[in-house]
Amino acid sequence: MAQLLRVQNFTVSSDGIGAGADQSLEDPFGSGIDPGTMFAWAGATASWPNRTEPGGSRGLDDYFTRDFTHDIGAEIMGRNKFGPQRGPWQDHEWRGWWGDEPPFHTPVFVMTHHERPSFTLSDTTFHFVGGDPATVLDRARGAAGGKDVRLGGGVTTIREFLDADLVDTLHVAVCPVKLGSGLRLWESPDDLRDRFHLEIVPSPSGVTHHLFWRR
Amino acid sequence: MAQLLRVQNFTVSSDGIGAGADQSLEDPFGSGIDPGTMFAWAGATASWPNRTEPGGSRGLDDYFTRDFTHDIGAEIMGRNKFGPQRGPWQDHEWRGWWGDEPPFHTPVFVMTHHERPSFTLSDTTFHFVGGDPATVLDRARGAAGGKDVRLGGGVTTIREFLDADLVDTLHVAVCPVKLGSGLRLWESPDDLRDRFHLEIVPSPSGVTHHLFWRR
Repeated sequence: MAQLLRVQNFTVSSDGIGAGADQSLEDPFGSGIDPGTMFAWAGATASWPNRTEPGGSRGLDDYFTRDFTHDIGAEIMGRNKFGPQRGPWQDHEWRGWWGDEPPFHTPVFVMTHHERPSFTLSDTTFHFVGGDPATVLDRARGAAGGKDVRLGGGVTTIREFLDADLVDTLHVAVCPVKLGSGLRLWESPDDLRDRFHLEIVPSPSGVTHHLFWRR
Repeated sequence: MAQLLRVQNFTVSSDGIGAGADQSLEDPFGSGIDPGTMFAWAGATASWPNRTEPGGSRGLDDYFTRDFTHDIGAEIMGRNKFGPQRGPWQDHEWRGWWGDEPPFHTPVFVMTHHERPSFTLSDTTFHFVGGDPATVLDRARGAAGGKDVRLGGGVTTIREFLDADLVDTLHVAVCPVKLGSGLRLWESPDDLRDRFHLEIVPSPSGVTHHLFWRR
């Protein structure tokens, strides 16, 4: 079986915005983005990886949170998904936004031009890698033990891999809130129809799941 | 985490019928039921367990076929899902409808009042067990290695476990074909609303996914 590159549970606003432009340690998603609103659909499900209490819904949205780890052997993320730093790494003590128990449970490849030693938190190992998308994907596939690779985001990273035509499937949850400005995944989901099949599935929670797979 | 009892990918007609009453070796689903029509929605997906060729859709329906094995450690099935025999086992050479590579990959508990030794085909071991639903579920949970148990069907078996209030979640795909007679899972999916949340999700393939989870 081919090892797919999959975007999973990526959430954008109704106008296609996934993050504010000005991310900081206090504002991981940038100003104007309230992750509590954007990810409410996922947080309400039984299988949400960060859930600390029992309960949660087991309807449609749960199939998507439940699928987050399914047959995934590695993740690729942009540097901004790891932390707010820019330029050479200053503070190796700060080890990312993901806490001592990151929800990835696989090798994670953080794309950066700046070298930094790998480290492990619980069962997630972060590697810091340069190179173009195809090179990084090769490394992630090699580490994935035959499984698929998840492309974690953010917007800029997903766009780079789309431009390089390396993405096999995307699940994007469109949240019924308009943001106006920020980092935009698309002008319209129709932008991708030339290369992908698209199914649009409204959820009772209010988000609309967009499922793309390569033609 | 609790070990759930889950019905997965169970397909019924628009009038709630899952099988004909007169199953035989030639007609596993009973007369009047064409499995090619009933399961076309699943067979078209990339993750359909019996798929022999590459390709297949990766939209909504694929999330359901993909979830078939997710966190499942054992299956319970009624005797009719194993084979058409009734009464004491006559022919131990015939080892079920599922071929040399059954799609279960876990212990399977076949409910029957008639003793028969366990046997293994590939990575699926079939056990033949008597007793009431709660007793059989205890055995399946014990064999599931902490994972969930799938309740495979058919209709009669699912109804027995519903009557005993042992089912935690159900995914039922309702196919847009009316059968008129046969074994009926429900008069209406609303029958279960007193005990279950219900989300109804239409798929572009024509089936309507019904997702139930315990209130």
